[in-house]
Amino acid sequence: MISFESDYIAGAHLEVIARLAETNLECVPGYGEDSYCASAREKIRAAVGIPDADVEFLVGGTQTNAIVISTMLADHEGVIAAKTGHVSTHEAGAIEYTGHKVLELEQQDGKIDPGALRAYVGGFYADENHEHMVFPGMVYISYPTECGTLYSKNELMEIADICHEYGMRFFIDGARLGYGLMSRQADVTLQELAQICDVFYIGGTKMGALCGEAVVFTKGNKPAHFMNSIKKRGALLAKGRLLGVQFDALFTDDLYFRIGKYAIDMAERMKMLFADKGLEMYIDSPTNQQFIVLDDERMDLLKDKIRFSFWEKLDENHTVIRFVTSWSTTEEDMQALEEALGVI
Amino acid sequence: MISFESDYIAGAHLEVIARLAETNLECVPGYGEDSYCASAREKIRAAVGIPDADVEFLVGGTQTNAIVISTMLADHEGVIAAKTGHVSTHEAGAIEYTGHKVLELEQQDGKIDPGALRAYVGGFYADENHEHMVFPGMVYISYPTECGTLYSKNELMEIADICHEYGMRFFIDGARLGYGLMSRQADVTLQELAQICDVFYIGGTKMGALCGEAVVFTKGNKPAHFMNSIKKRGALLAKGRLLGVQFDALFTDDLYFRIGKYAIDMAERMKMLFADKGLEMYIDSPTNQQFIVLDDERMDLLKDKIRFSFWEKLDENHTVIRFVTSWSTTEEDMQALEEALGVI
Amino acid sequence: MISFESDYIAGAHLEVIARLAETNLECVPGYGEDSYCASAREKIRAAVGIPDADVEFLVGGTQTNAIVISTMLADHEGVIAAKTGHVSTHEAGAIEYTGHKVLELEQQDGKIDPGALRAYVGGFYADENHEHMVFPGMVYISYPTECGTLYSKNELMEIADICHEYGMRFFIDGARLGYGLMSRQADVTLQELAQICDVFYIGGTKMGALCGEAVVFTKGNKPAHFMNSIKKRGALLAKGRLLGVQFDALFTDDLYFRIGKYAIDMAERMKMLFADKGLEMYIDSPTNQQFIVLDDERMDLLKDKIRFSFWEKLDENHTVIRFVTSWSTTEEDMQALEEALGVI
Amino acid sequence: MISFESDYIAGAHLEVIARLAETNLECVPGYGEDSYCASAREKIRAAVGIPDADVEFLVGGTQTNAIVISTMLADHEGVIAAKTGHVSTHEAGAIEYTGHKVLELEQQDGKIDPGALRAYVGGFYADENHEHMVFPGMVYISYPTECGTLYSKNELMEIADICHEYGMRFFIDGARLGYGLMSRQADVTLQELAQICDVFYIGGTKMGALCGEAVVFTKGNKPAHFMNSIKKRGALLAKGRLLGVQFDALFTDDLYFRIGKYAIDMAERMKMLFADKGLEMYIDSPTNQQFIVLDDERMDLLKDKIRFSFWEKLDENHTVIRFVTSWSTTEEDMQALEEALGVI
Repeated sequence: MISFESDYIAGAHLEVIARLAETNLECVPGYGEDSYCASAREKIRAAVGIPDADVEFLVGGTQTNAIVISTMLADHEGVIAAKTGHVSTHEAGAIEYTGHKVLELEQQDGKIDPGALRAYVGGFYADENHEHMVFPGMVYISYPTECGTLYSKNELMEIADICHEYGMRFFIDGARLGYGLMSRQADVTLQELAQICDVFYIGGTKMGALCGEAVVFTKGNKPAHFMNSIKKRGALLAKGRLLGVQFDALFTDDLYFRIGKYAIDMAERMKMLFADKGLEMYIDSPTNQQFIVLDDERMDLLKDKIRFSFWEKLDENHTVIRFVTSWSTTEEDMQALEEALGVI
Repeated sequence: MISFESDYIAGAHLEVIARLAETNLECVPGYGEDSYCASAREKIRAAVGIPDADVEFLVGGTQTNAIVISTMLADHEGVIAAKTGHVSTHEAGAIEYTGHKVLELEQQDGKIDPGALRAYVGGFYADENHEHMVFPGMVYISYPTECGTLYSKNELMEIADICHEYGMRFFIDGARLGYGLMSRQADVTLQELAQICDVFYIGGTKMGALCGEAVVFTKGNKPAHFMNSIKKRGALLAKGRLLGVQFDALFTDDLYFRIGKYAIDMAERMKMLFADKGLEMYIDSPTNQQFIVLDDERMDLLKDKIRFSFWEKLDENHTVIRFVTSWSTTEEDMQALEEALGVI
Repeated sequence: MISFESDYIAGAHLEVIARLAETNLECVPGYGEDSYCASAREKIRAAVGIPDADVEFLVGGTQTNAIVISTMLADHEGVIAAKTGHVSTHEAGAIEYTGHKVLELEQQDGKIDPGALRAYVGGFYADENHEHMVFPGMVYISYPTECGTLYSKNELMEIADICHEYGMRFFIDGARLGYGLMSRQADVTLQELAQICDVFYIGGTKMGALCGEAVVFTKGNKPAHFMNSIKKRGALLAKGRLLGVQFDALFTDDLYFRIGKYAIDMAERMKMLFADKGLEMYIDSPTNQQFIVLDDERMDLLKDKIRFSFWEKLDENHTVIRFVTSWSTTEEDMQALEEALGVI
Repeated sequence: MISFESDYIAGAHLEVIARLAETNLECVPGYGEDSYCASAREKIRAAVGIPDADVEFLVGGTQTNAIVISTMLADHEGVIAAKTGHVSTHEAGAIEYTGHKVLELEQQDGKIDPGALRAYVGGFYADENHEHMVFPGMVYISYPTECGTLYSKNELMEIADICHEYGMRFFIDGARLGYGLMSRQADVTLQELAQICDVFYIGGTKMGALCGEAVVFTKGNKPAHFMNSIKKRGALLAKGRLLGVQFDALFTDDLYFRIGKYAIDMAERMKMLFADKGLEMYIDSPTNQQFIVLDDERMDLLKDKIRFSFWEKLDENHTVIRFVTSWSTTEEDMQALEEALGVI
């Protein structure tokens, strides 16, 4: 059945899988010390505009979040995140497993409000008992957020200011970074984003790779012996090439951005289909995830035609469902969606 | 200076320190295998009315919470607590340090609403993505709460029902248990409370001991090799007698309850002093902690006369402050308070 | 340069990479719920001869060890392993990171002696202080070992007996399982091995996959909510198909065993080359890893011709080096080795 | 029955318990911010001869080891200890619980040989795979050791040199420090020991306190936000005075050293009793723990007369048993021992 369930339903983008096949029999050193990883690192440094950025490849998003957060926090620190942040709710407690608390803030459409952030951190230090509490050591946001929304450049800079004022690191989860940067609403470039934050990752899994995320430390701040910490957390790939080759392909001929743009174009068409049908949008998302509200009867009808994903129960009779486009969305998919919408 | 800062400003109740002195030179086995621990266990079993309850002594409250929670949760589970719960905010992340998430619920005067609890847990299982989330494995409440309030017997029973319906354990933090049970508003006895929950602890530190908390497993549910888990967490006292002797004294001649009643009587007198003075109560607390709102100018005046503790900033000009009574509160203290209030 | 550095220098076996390419554009559910994972599970169950075995796919070896060990041990337990075991020395403390101790036993050529194991565990329970010590909860061995050696069927059965006598689980790390089973010295089949132990994993990374290990729980003993525990440890792949497709290929037409046999044949030829040259073997290994002792001068000469890996300094002038064959070893490689040996 | 089971069979030294009783009703701030803790810190700084040393009080030995080690190690580091070190075998895995490996070295009479230490660390860095291994970040020794033996000043200095050469911290567990320093064989003073190591603790529990250990950071190297880390590990006492008062007493009028000397004198008399009886000493211990070898028949006879502790089974018919003196050993105890020895 045609599926809009997620942006990880297909394998790898054709240019990525082709590179894996082409380079397959070459013999290279393990653990990320091969020439493909080196080349990918170089291309990413160029793309982010920071010649001495440290770039490290990891396998998946939750793993990356747990490793970045746990190696960059001090013992007495936790990480601030939106209640809807991936680290707060959908990682099975992976951050807490590393011994650090996620300090959850109220959110709006998946975003932390800089004002609320400032109030929280200011309040923390004003509290005379704060030595008995978890110190805020990092701010985690997703770009785009889990709700498909985007922070403006101003918001990002304001968050960065607060972080630096209070000695916190600023970490951006870019699991879907390309879909954010290529959004028509985005007002920040990859290079600007890299400058603003302290560390971020360029998502591969949801952007055309079989697996893989590229962490970028932008301020000469990679934790000492980071490879050892990766190994200690069971995340070091023997065949590091698997990640190097893929990211090398993604950052060749702007593939990463082409993938982003393509999915955004599909998402905009999808929005029009929903609008034409008069469906209620749950969130006004400018990226590749679109959320609509359906009464459960119509949802069940639609479920027979096409795959999408459950987001949340809105009330007794209504459900929020999610449709996701990606590099793998086809014309055929779009037509099937249009037809499916026709019968509900 | 006279102090109402907390219920742990003095040493031990005289009957407790006397027993420590009397038994001091006796030679006994270590690690809680002495006759005083045995006797204290027996007296506690009798007091809670469960002849085969397992009773274990630990040193402090945060330690007890972390040990009980981490040994009773499965790997995939976290603990539900009020946002204001001690485990949520004032334990420096001790629960997360054990690898488990605290699932924070909104609260009212420090209490979880059973309806909100049911909605949360029901919503969890209704969420199709819950396999990627932290499972609710335990409900933690404090009796009395950190805000001095009490759950009614009906509320406790409703929480217990929800726990058992969803396979969660019900844990009651009784750091100030005696002050709760002896409150004039309490409608539950120690024996009833023990029956309702799965595990709770009888606080010693704030109830007249130098240190020590007695964990009671009420349903034959003490984790296997619990002593080893205590040791592994650095919490096993070589001289376990220190805890045994103290709890033996606290449960001799109803001392634990006499201490509770005395402090409640003092707190009721304090409430009247505040009422006479027309001060705004922040929370209507029926236990030994009393919270008032003062403008900062008057607060500063009061600070010169008497010690209390900061609770929170209410707004720019007002602060919530806390006064605590205990077994160690004296007539002289009460008079000093009355005089101090006279000058503001 | 021609390399015998390890069995993870090349990409994937051609039959594996071909399947990845063929299935690439198909859209399937994430997180291991796709049909390829299902098919691979079925084929593995058939191959191990246990129709209701639980099979789970993970990404790498250290990750697999850490997850299996930490989810199968109780709080008070640790895992017994040889001092040279991968978990003891080459995983950067990944097991300890989960809060469990590796109880290291003396070894001989990488193997634990069943008699020494029995003495250790018996001694543990005879020690009157053992309640203060880490309980032995599991025995970890590798088949083949890190030194290339093999346990006999009798040794495996003896270890299993000791495990079951003392309530320990028996876990076999099969990172190179196929190279062990296809050794001319192996006297145990995959099905027998599966019956003997409680849990083991079938290594993919070193046996022709880009990544991936298949854990097999053989006794209905998969930990509850195992997927959640995988997620919590950052090890759940969004595109689980990456593992499913590969293992499906590895267990089609006996590919896994063909790969094993081929590498063993190459290793036997290599042994003859070394013997012809009169080189000293460090260990008599019947599998795909071969260890020789060279004086440092000759080692440096060889290093200019061919790649191998450092094993350990034997004394001031001699070094143990390792040569590894695999499915990717070619005729050309063997000739290059012969030539290289000619000049030292 | 008269007992030589351990040095923690009695309560507190009379001068200690007296101070607890005298100061009992005084109201002081919690969490170690009282004047007794301040005074005890000052006296300890004077005694160790480092005016700006940081002194922190903790409750027990295993707790202290776990906190010091886990807060002073970096993520990629472990701690080196003798196989017989308390952290290696008798803490139920408390160090591993913090996520760090104990790197166990062979020992002789409980001591690490500086030469073996240098070989181990040198070998680690010479191993080309060491980036995949746990880095040695600290050396842990006990003074006196668990076997009652002592390092010479030269040995301590040699270990310190190796530590500083390789960037490791040097930590001395002084659970029985006073019994070591007052040994007739000791050639190091408290002040010298403090200068030599980076951090150590002055044991209270086994030296006359009800509980308590005083950690001394000697080089301005106390981890940042150490109190928060203590709280996070459940080790912060609300009534910190309990520790402050006791250490204040122990460091008043040289009580700590008087206690040490007294126990050593008793131990020397005990050694003579054993010698007169012609008993085989298992280790030649110059401190308050004495180990003898008995055939099991005589051991059983002795067990009827007097308490001692099991150390280890030597062979089928012989057992090593331990006798411990302390501040609480009496003349009556010594006579009872002499009589008991008379009948075997």
